[in-house]
This record gives sequence, C-alpha cells and structure tokens, in this order.
Amino acid sequence: MGFWNSVSLLNLQDFRPGIRSVAECGDNLVMACMEIVQGREDTGHQHPFEQCGIVVTGKIEMFIGDEHRVLEEMETYFIPAGTVHGWKTSDMPVRLLDVSAKVGIQTGQS
Amino acid sequence: MGFWNSVSLLNLQDFRPGIRSVAECGDNLVMACMEIVQGREDTGHQHPFEQCGIVVTGKIEMFIGDEHRVLEEMETYFIPAGTVHGWKTSDMPVRLLDVSAKVGIQTGQS
Repeated sequence: MGFWNSVSLLNLQDFRPGIRSVAECGDNLVMACMEIVQGREDTGHQHPFEQCGIVVTGKIEMFIGDEHRVLEEMETYFIPAGTVHGWKTSDMPVRLLDVSAKVGIQTGQS
Repeated sequence: MGFWNSVSLLNLQDFRPGIRSVAECGDNLVMACMEIVQGREDTGHQHPFEQCGIVVTGKIEMFIGDEHRVLEEMETYFIPAGTVHGWKTSDMPVRLLDVSAKVGIQTGQS
C-alpha cells in the first residue's frame, strides 16, 4: 500500500501470455498497472465486479456492451458489473492503470 | 458508464471550495476526475473504504499513515480503509483520477 512511482516506468511481472502487470490488492480494490503487447485480443468476457481504468501509454480498442471505442492516452473506461467487454491492442503495446472491485463485493459472497 | 475523453481536458463541475470534479458512480466503485487549486490542504481524515488514484497533471503532497510523499504526474496512491491520510497542493493546481470503493462495502453498511 502507499505510493507507486510513475506507472510509465514501473517494472512489471509476467501475468498472462502477452500481459505483464503489477498489482496492489486491498480488501475492496485491486489497482493494477498492466501492459499488453501489440496484436492481442480479448473477444469478450464478463465478471460480477466493476472495473475501470485509464490508458497511460499507447492505445487500445475496447467495447463495453454496445459501446465501442479506441482509447488513447489519458482516456478512461468504466465497466459495469456483468457487462460483456473486450479489447484489442494495436501495433504497439498499451499500458493501463486498472482498478477493480474485488469479486463478490456486489453479492456479499467471498 | 463507458468511456471518458482525456482526463486532462474533461470539463469539471464545482464540488467543494477549491475542488472541481466529475464522477462516474457505479454500484461498487466511484471513479472521479478532480482538480484541486493551488495552496489547499487537507490535514487528515479517514473513511471506512479504500481509495486509490493517479496524478494526471501537476503535483500533490500526500500522506497515508506514516508514509509521506510528493506525488508527480503518473504517480499513484493507495489508501487502505481506515487509514488517516491528507494532502497539500503546491503553487499549481493538481488533477487526479481517483477511484474509491463505495462507503459501507467493507462493513456491509449502506
């Protein structure tokens, strides 16, 4: 907890293929800096917790339900719980600062 | 919900004296872009929900419990629930993207 240096420069760890990240996990929130390499796509998924974030460097194509957008630096997203969303990177990596509510907050389940 | 244009350019509304903001309020998360004018200070407060965010433009002096830092652009903070924290702006306005868990999530209170 506490402070991070510039998210543009943070050292990240392998998280999933093509995605490196570092995260701060609290009781209610997870704040993550993540970088996704170029040419990757998530065609859509959903989860029971809200998620939001901001593009730090690069750009990313994203959809949230029926809304579709190419997000550039300093542009944000807010994904309601249960809404299908996905993304596609361009020809360059994208770095995001992402914040999620932890699973089960909405329903009270652990 | 959905997308915001660059948080550097978002139009903000008066929120409190010296603070302008715009917010996206979900069921679990509140994402706010806020700008605080120069020369303001919050000497310390606490709340039962977690809060985190990133400096978009400018800089801000901040403390979280015993940790103290001058945060510059692209640097982040993560405030645990119940931890006393405060801030002080410099000789220029600061703009933040801030995300809070909603009040009562941790305790189940509304």
